[in-house]
Amino acid sequence: MKKTIIFIGALLLTLNAAHSQKKNSKPNFVIIFTDDLGYGDLGTYGNPSILTPNLDKLASEGQKWTNFYVAANVCTPSRAALLTGKLPVRIGMESDTKRVLFPNSSGGLPESETTIAELLKTASYQTAAIGKWHLGHLEPYTPLNNGFDYYYGIPYSNDMDRDDKIPYQKLLDPDYNTGINDFNVPLIRNKDIIERPANQETITKRYTEESVAFIKKNKDKPFFLYLAHSMPHIPLFRSKDFAGKSKGGKYGDVIEELDWSVGEIIKALKEQHLDENTYVIFTSDNGPWKLFKEQGGSSGTLYGAKGTSYEGGTRVPFIIWSPKNLKPKVEVKIGSTLDLLTTIGSLAHVQFPENLKTDGYDLSPVLKGENSNPRNEMFFYHGTKLFAARLGDYKLYYYKNDPVGYPQKLEKLEKLQLFNLAVDPSETNNIIDKKSDVVAQIEEAVAKHLATVVPVKSNLDGVITAKN
Amino acid sequence: MKKTIIFIGALLLTLNAAHSQKKNSKPNFVIIFTDDLGYGDLGTYGNPSILTPNLDKLASEGQKWTNFYVAANVCTPSRAALLTGKLPVRIGMESDTKRVLFPNSSGGLPESETTIAELLKTASYQTAAIGKWHLGHLEPYTPLNNGFDYYYGIPYSNDMDRDDKIPYQKLLDPDYNTGINDFNVPLIRNKDIIERPANQETITKRYTEESVAFIKKNKDKPFFLYLAHSMPHIPLFRSKDFAGKSKGGKYGDVIEELDWSVGEIIKALKEQHLDENTYVIFTSDNGPWKLFKEQGGSSGTLYGAKGTSYEGGTRVPFIIWSPKNLKPKVEVKIGSTLDLLTTIGSLAHVQFPENLKTDGYDLSPVLKGENSNPRNEMFFYHGTKLFAARLGDYKLYYYKNDPVGYPQKLEKLEKLQLFNLAVDPSETNNIIDKKSDVVAQIEEAVAKHLATVVPVKSNLDGVITAKN
Repeated sequence: MKKTIIFIGALLLTLNAAHSQKKNSKPNFVIIFTDDLGYGDLGTYGNPSILTPNLDKLASEGQKWTNFYVAANVCTPSRAALLTGKLPVRIGMESDTKRVLFPNSSGGLPESETTIAELLKTASYQTAAIGKWHLGHLEPYTPLNNGFDYYYGIPYSNDMDRDDKIPYQKLLDPDYNTGINDFNVPLIRNKDIIERPANQETITKRYTEESVAFIKKNKDKPFFLYLAHSMPHIPLFRSKDFAGKSKGGKYGDVIEELDWSVGEIIKALKEQHLDENTYVIFTSDNGPWKLFKEQGGSSGTLYGAKGTSYEGGTRVPFIIWSPKNLKPKVEVKIGSTLDLLTTIGSLAHVQFPENLKTDGYDLSPVLKGENSNPRNEMFFYHGTKLFAARLGDYKLYYYKNDPVGYPQKLEKLEKLQLFNLAVDPSETNNIIDKKSDVVAQIEEAVAKHLATVVPVKSNLDGVITAKN
Repeated sequence: MKKTIIFIGALLLTLNAAHSQKKNSKPNFVIIFTDDLGYGDLGTYGNPSILTPNLDKLASEGQKWTNFYVAANVCTPSRAALLTGKLPVRIGMESDTKRVLFPNSSGGLPESETTIAELLKTASYQTAAIGKWHLGHLEPYTPLNNGFDYYYGIPYSNDMDRDDKIPYQKLLDPDYNTGINDFNVPLIRNKDIIERPANQETITKRYTEESVAFIKKNKDKPFFLYLAHSMPHIPLFRSKDFAGKSKGGKYGDVIEELDWSVGEIIKALKEQHLDENTYVIFTSDNGPWKLFKEQGGSSGTLYGAKGTSYEGGTRVPFIIWSPKNLKPKVEVKIGSTLDLLTTIGSLAHVQFPENLKTDGYDLSPVLKGENSNPRNEMFFYHGTKLFAARLGDYKLYYYKNDPVGYPQKLEKLEKLQLFNLAVDPSETNNIIDKKSDVVAQIEEAVAKHLATVVPVKSNLDGVITAKN
């Protein structure tokens, strides 16, 4: 009798767990997108000072990609590419005069574009954008105009809206202790400013709480959470619990708080029994802002930084975790944030709009372990100029600039440069004279690609004329 | 009745497993020591091309140290330091004229020194050295003279004993396909040459087989296995199974075969039920030989290479694994191969010789999770010159040399340089003018240290006068 009761109890527990994980049959998606976090900033990507146990675990239980790119080396175009799957140059989100949006910008991501959120809305997903937006802060460019049901965050970079008394030079000084009130960036819920200046010291913590609340609220519905942290973009802020915690200084503290945040998201998913049916993605919008030295991150073994289209400016950590759906591996194939819309749409089995043409590939076969290679090339734009192109293992450069980067000037190379990234990821060994066959192949792919790029009007250059 | 039988069966299985793991109560030690493998060559230390699943697993199940140093930037002195716990300069194993031993060298590690093997022999350990020795190939300098019961390997570097028809310049050319017969390095068992030239293509495989055989043979006795791979020192060789396997070229193939080898060692330990009572250590003898470009490794985010005392030449991967004894962690405290003799002796509870004075610290409290910090400094010699010193997070340089390194010339710095390695591991930001207090502290520690260093005769410079 006793045994029977135990048996039934066990059965009920099992059924209950299965039910919890199944009541929501469409998979959930969480994209955690950091700001200026470099390729070398996480333990699992080789950082020797900063401890990131939650991300290291995510990488070892999930898939760690080592040749994953953003589509732009600065913030605004990179975000536009992630959400739309399109090269920013095609949709007016790269410009040769302004690289990102500013508080006085009047433009933003064109309404006509389909974002991941809009795509998933067609399949009845609940959607939230939490964190930094930077794709336009006026109508019709806000998160709520772009497929998100809910928004909580700051509209542009955390160093914009600065107190006029704080010269930029001061921010470069690591000994200058930036205060919350040196900035005037607003914190917005949906369309309302709820705090100004945003208290940046607690912002990572509050983004995390908002994310956990969104997950709990939507545990019975399919959801898409786009958590775009404001950190580790300068000015660096972290909550009291993390101040002085890291061996890696203030920058290390900030990364360790982001790592803590990842742990909280995973914990919430597990508590809600959603871990089996959720894909968690962690990546960054561009390389580290090395100009800020110890306040900026590390590109590890890679050359270059934010604001350059060298590897250090464009190759980013990328971890995708979904233990029940994806076998752990390190993936050395090429991937890009450009592919996320297509891949997520494919994993969610949504109907893509008929006329939607993106620059993305469906990476889901690679994620599922198939030996295919959907993305074999990457085109690196700087403004509207093609700075470099990668085909297979080789990257060909047409321009050069200061590897510490941003702000900077481009210089057209009199003689092109070629690197084999597989054996020379640090780009130290220019092999242009040895591989004319490879150069010819890349030039052919570039010509084919350029023929598809139609010049469009910039959406970054417009300025608010009368103060609202 | 049936239940009782199952219960007894389970009990017997448990007892049996406990017995297997306990019959040998002293812990076993396996040191896997690679040749010229760089800080950035393993997946878990951030390599983007080379796949090292076995080492990544070892690191996530064990302890991964990120501030671990060898005591010399080239082979011979580094090995002397590991086995004796002494700075090579104290025992004539650094010299300003020759940096390592050569086939025509007459000297080696002084007989008077106590090696880890000799120390463990006093506690009845079985000992084997498998792989490259490079501490003297004549009597009384061989492994069998230094506490090892068994030896199988090559006596010095795999590029020495070269065919005169192969100019060194050829080895630098990645397109030149080095053949086994371009070299004449002997393979030795105990004291006998059993093959010449050693077939280097199968050498990693055969070292592994020898290691597994030694583990199996000694499963009932405490043992110390010193497996010092010849690879990835140039000329690069790997077995057929690994040729062309890696995305990282021939160098990547070689590392992936070393990773396979680690997996075989762990498998053998598990099969013999020795995993609970064995400490496995993986590290490298110095930084990567960057002079050889894509045939050399990567120092990842660190500056410098083999032959330099910058971080890239002296900081190495260090993983220690013993799942039942050590909790997994990433350790950012300073450690050194100088500490292995003391630490291993402490873990094995051996009686240290009364007059033994080493440069090592007992790291076992840190390994066991205590919040202590036994090693807070590191002295970096280049020949007999103090090139740099680290105290806490700061490293002070007295000399400079070509960061690609070896062979190279030192240049005394007119103005010293100081770096904070915790926030600037890549050594890009010289802060000498900002931290006079730190400089004073380091100078004081250096003066104290130098007062203990008594000049001794070099054991590296002697040459065989008549051909034996």
